[in-house]
Parts: sequence; structure tokens; C-alpha cells
Amino acid sequence: MSDGLLFVPTFQDVLTARERIHPYVHRTPVLTSTYLNKLTGAELYFKCENLQKAGASKARGAINAVFQMPDESARRGFATHSSGNHGLCLSYAAARRGVRATVVMPRTAPEAKKDAVRMYGGTVIECEPSTTAREAVLAKIIGETGADFVHPYNDARVIAGQATCSLELFEEVGQLDALIAPIGGGGMISGSCLTMSNISPATKIYGAEPANADDAARSLKAGYIIEDDSPQTIAEGLKVGLRDRTWHFVSTYVTNILLASENEIVEAMQLTWQRMKVVIEPSSAVPLATILNSPGIFAGKKVGIVLTGGNVDLGRLPWTSNQKIS
Amino acid sequence: MSDGLLFVPTFQDVLTARERIHPYVHRTPVLTSTYLNKLTGAELYFKCENLQKAGASKARGAINAVFQMPDESARRGFATHSSGNHGLCLSYAAARRGVRATVVMPRTAPEAKKDAVRMYGGTVIECEPSTTAREAVLAKIIGETGADFVHPYNDARVIAGQATCSLELFEEVGQLDALIAPIGGGGMISGSCLTMSNISPATKIYGAEPANADDAARSLKAGYIIEDDSPQTIAEGLKVGLRDRTWHFVSTYVTNILLASENEIVEAMQLTWQRMKVVIEPSSAVPLATILNSPGIFAGKKVGIVLTGGNVDLGRLPWTSNQKIS
Repeated sequence: MSDGLLFVPTFQDVLTARERIHPYVHRTPVLTSTYLNKLTGAELYFKCENLQKAGASKARGAINAVFQMPDESARRGFATHSSGNHGLCLSYAAARRGVRATVVMPRTAPEAKKDAVRMYGGTVIECEPSTTAREAVLAKIIGETGADFVHPYNDARVIAGQATCSLELFEEVGQLDALIAPIGGGGMISGSCLTMSNISPATKIYGAEPANADDAARSLKAGYIIEDDSPQTIAEGLKVGLRDRTWHFVSTYVTNILLASENEIVEAMQLTWQRMKVVIEPSSAVPLATILNSPGIFAGKKVGIVLTGGNVDLGRLPWTSNQKIS
Repeated sequence: MSDGLLFVPTFQDVLTARERIHPYVHRTPVLTSTYLNKLTGAELYFKCENLQKAGASKARGAINAVFQMPDESARRGFATHSSGNHGLCLSYAAARRGVRATVVMPRTAPEAKKDAVRMYGGTVIECEPSTTAREAVLAKIIGETGADFVHPYNDARVIAGQATCSLELFEEVGQLDALIAPIGGGGMISGSCLTMSNISPATKIYGAEPANADDAARSLKAGYIIEDDSPQTIAEGLKVGLRDRTWHFVSTYVTNILLASENEIVEAMQLTWQRMKVVIEPSSAVPLATILNSPGIFAGKKVGIVLTGGNVDLGRLPWTSNQKIS
């Protein structure tokens, strides 16, 4: 689709999405921590999407996409490629509608991730670990079944669904000076931009990205989308790159994209588990990691942080002994 | 104090406690899990006191005790013996009032636990690891400073504070068929009995106890307090025994006390982390463990579960590899 015809959601789509997804998602709690406020000098409000259905904010986007389709289309099922939360969430959403979700995953993906998709009722189709193979397999499934393709983030329905998260946060805590969320493909950030630009335009939106997968930060500086080449980071959900719809929001509304090292991400993750008593995945720790390494930006400010997900393998935590936390 | 003169709190004390503690505690969220509902056949409502201030429900009791005292007494400080959550919570409470908390701990207690008390502003005084030594040291401190002794659970102010937890739960989810909480010394269970017997007398109250520290279950059967002799359980907060005030509530209102093995406790703990994405300590996993091993009692019922705390050493988790969870 060319830029001239780019279909991006409107704030009315967000309000409609909110009504549509309401029966199928949690209104997640917003937590605060006196300790982390002292540590950062900021007033932090954590929107706990790790406590969302299927353990991830992406349940909002997937439910919105799946329940938006007319019955006739929905009956043909839904398909996507994802080895992360979107696969789980689309499976959850399709199961709630009683239709099929097919998730294309590289055969090399961990069995635990394939099992998780199946546990939510999805069908896993394996492909060779390359973009070409993935797209060929997905195209074949769509061709054969008429399934509707729900892209993990570059989809107006998904972005409108994700945008309901910051709407709830605003309703609960009021005006924020800043809102920060992890940025990978940019679905959550785009939703946050869409909501905040409509209801609280003075709120600055920040993306938080692993320094090891800093394509969005470089893109924002350059003024066009730059892709990473096989980035390596513990924040697996953030390895993917921006696409045209998310770039539209990021390039228009995001104030800055801040970076954190792998160590900083692990420390912020551990700090969150230890002090806030919630299980978050590495991607969700990146915003706090950047606040801790860039205190000047946030000190004295009222800041919303989206904890986007909590799907982590408890048997493989990135700390093993009695590490001291900062 | 003899039974004839036993001072136990009333429901009016609970309502007063709620107003008193409100500025200093979180109204903690109530979480649900479709997965755990399916697994147990029950409708479960988890009251997340692991997300409470200082990571434990005991913040309610400690705050109520500390803020109930007149200024003149409060200025002399507070003292207790505890190597667990009560020590942290009393330190938190005293710090909020700007007065001193002294916590007597065996010198053999882990340094991490002593550090945690200090982090919340408490003063740790070490004693030899025996009940006699502990009581002598505590008596000396009280004699010298005039500090007010706040027992971890056998204290009317503490019980009234703990009772505000089930009051919030009732307000949020309405009438419950059953309410289940871990039982050690019985502070939380006593508070639950106090609240529920007044606002929802049809709700059955269950205690959940490690089979390795089953003194409360044996006491309830016998009709008098039986003490354990140095019980060994991963649920460290539940090693202590009932005392006269908590026995009053337990013996009057508790339907039954259910037991779980050490393995069942660890499995329920891991299941809670994995599916609910919250960090709970082993003690808080005992209720779910008993629901899973006694499904007949709870199937088809609407059940409240108190997750009493989330203070756990992330560097020493009771699972090490990719254990499959049930």
C-alpha cells in the first residue's frame, strides 16, 4: 500500500475498539512504587499489561482485529506470523470467537513457544527460518483457507486495539507529562500516540529500545525507516522493525527513542520483579531501564510506563545467583 | 491475658482501621485467571496483597497499630520480633509516622532479611536464636525505650488492620462462597473471620497450611492450641503457631484447615507466577495448592484467595531448570 493511501486508524476507531474488546480483555491495574519513585525522582505509573489476557497487551489488538470482522470472513479464520506474544494473543482471540488461528513460526523456534500457541488454541505451521519461507507459507495458508491476515503491528485494527491501553491509563491517573513504552514494530507506541495526541496532546511520548536493536531510534533520527540486520537482544519482542503504519505515528508524534544496554534491561527487569512483585518479560523492562539511565529527562515528571507483557520462561531467568540489585 | 479478659477487635475496629490506614496502604487489585478457573473448576478471585506496601498484607496491621497510638506513646517507638514480613511492615509503618521501629532478629537470620528491615528504616537488634533470648532482648528494649510492642499477629490492632483486606475483596467482587488464606499465626485468617462473620456470614473460611507445619489443622481438630516443634517448610511465614486472640477467631469461625505438601506448594507458586504474572512468596501459594489437591471442596464455588505476600529472594527460587508445570 503506498503512503498516499495509507490506512491508519482514527481516535473514533479507538473508542469503538474499547467497546468491542471490553468483554474479552482485562482492565489492567496501574501500580505505583514509592521505592522506584525515589530511585528515579519521577512519579511513575505502571500500566500492567503483563496481567492482560494471554499475558500481553497484544491481546487488545488481536481481539479488536478478530471481533471486527463480519461473521462470514471470521469463519475462514485468521493467520499470522509470530514467534512471540502476537501469536498467543491471536490464538486467544480466535478461540474466543470460536474460529481458527494459524500461526506461522520458524521450525527453529523454541518448543515452549509453539506449545504456548497451541495451549491458547492456535495451530502452529512451521516454516524454514527465513523471511522468504515465512511469507511463502503464510501466503499459501491464506490462499487455501481465505484466512484473514492480522499483522502483529502494522494493522490499523491492531493499532486501534493497542491504543485502548493508554486510554485506560489516562482515565485512571489523569494527565501525564510523559508516556513511555517499549518500541519494536511500534504497535503499542503507535496506539499510545493515537490516543494521547487526541486526549492529551501535551504528553510527550517516548519509545524505549534495546541499544542492540536500535533501528527505531536510528530511523527517527534519519527521518526514514532503517532496518536492523539480525539484532541480538534479550528483549526478543523488540527485534522487529517499523512498518509504514507505525512509522506514520512514530515519525509524527514520538519525542525521542531512548536506548538501554542488555545489562540495564536485565537489572530493570529484576528490579521490577523484586520491588513491584510482578513478572515482566525483558521487553517490558526497557522503559524503566532508560528512565534509570536518563534520569534528567524524567525527574520531577509524572510518567506513564506500559509494562507490555509477562511471558517469560521461569526456568531460564537472566539471573542465577544472589545478584545484588542497584 | 486470660480468656475471660481477652481483648479482640470488633467490626467497628475494622471500619475505623480502614479509614486510618487508607493514606498509607494500596487498595490492591483483585486478579482472575481463566486458566486457573478451568484447572480448578472454581471461580477464583485473587486479592493481591503481594502488591501491597512492603510487599505484604501485614502492612495493613502494622500501619493500623502504629497510627492508632497517641503521639506521646508513638514517639517512644515500636518494637517487635520477626524475621519475616511483620518486621518489614512495622519498619515501613514507623517510618511513615517518623518514629523508630526496632526489630529483634536471631543473629543467624539471613543478612538479606536484616538488610530488608534496614531498607524500610527499621533498626535490627540481633539475639541468640532461641525464644528465651529473643524475649529477653525484646523486654530489655521495651524497658529501656518505652517502645510499644506490636506482636506480629496476636494483637487486636494488627487483626483489625488485616481484616480490611477481606472487606475490600467483598466490596470488589461481592458475596463469596468461600474465602481461603494461608494460616501461620492466624492474623490474616482472624481478620478474614472478623470481617466475613459480620458482612457475609454464609462465606466459609478456610485456612491453608503446609503439611510440614500443620499445627493449626491439628489444633482445630483437637479443640485447643497445639504447637509445632521446629517445623521445616519452604513457606517460612507459616512456621509460627496460633495464640489466644487468633485462636479465638479460628476456633469460632474457620470451617476447615487444608494441607499441602512442599512439592504442591512449589508447583502452585510456579503456576501463579507463570499464569498470573505476579511474584508471590511460598506462603501465598499454599491456598491454591490446597484447592488443587482438594478440588471437590471448591468446584463450582466462588472463592476468594488472599495472596498475602511477595517477598522472595529472586536469586534463590525453588525451581532451577525448565520444569514442566502441571
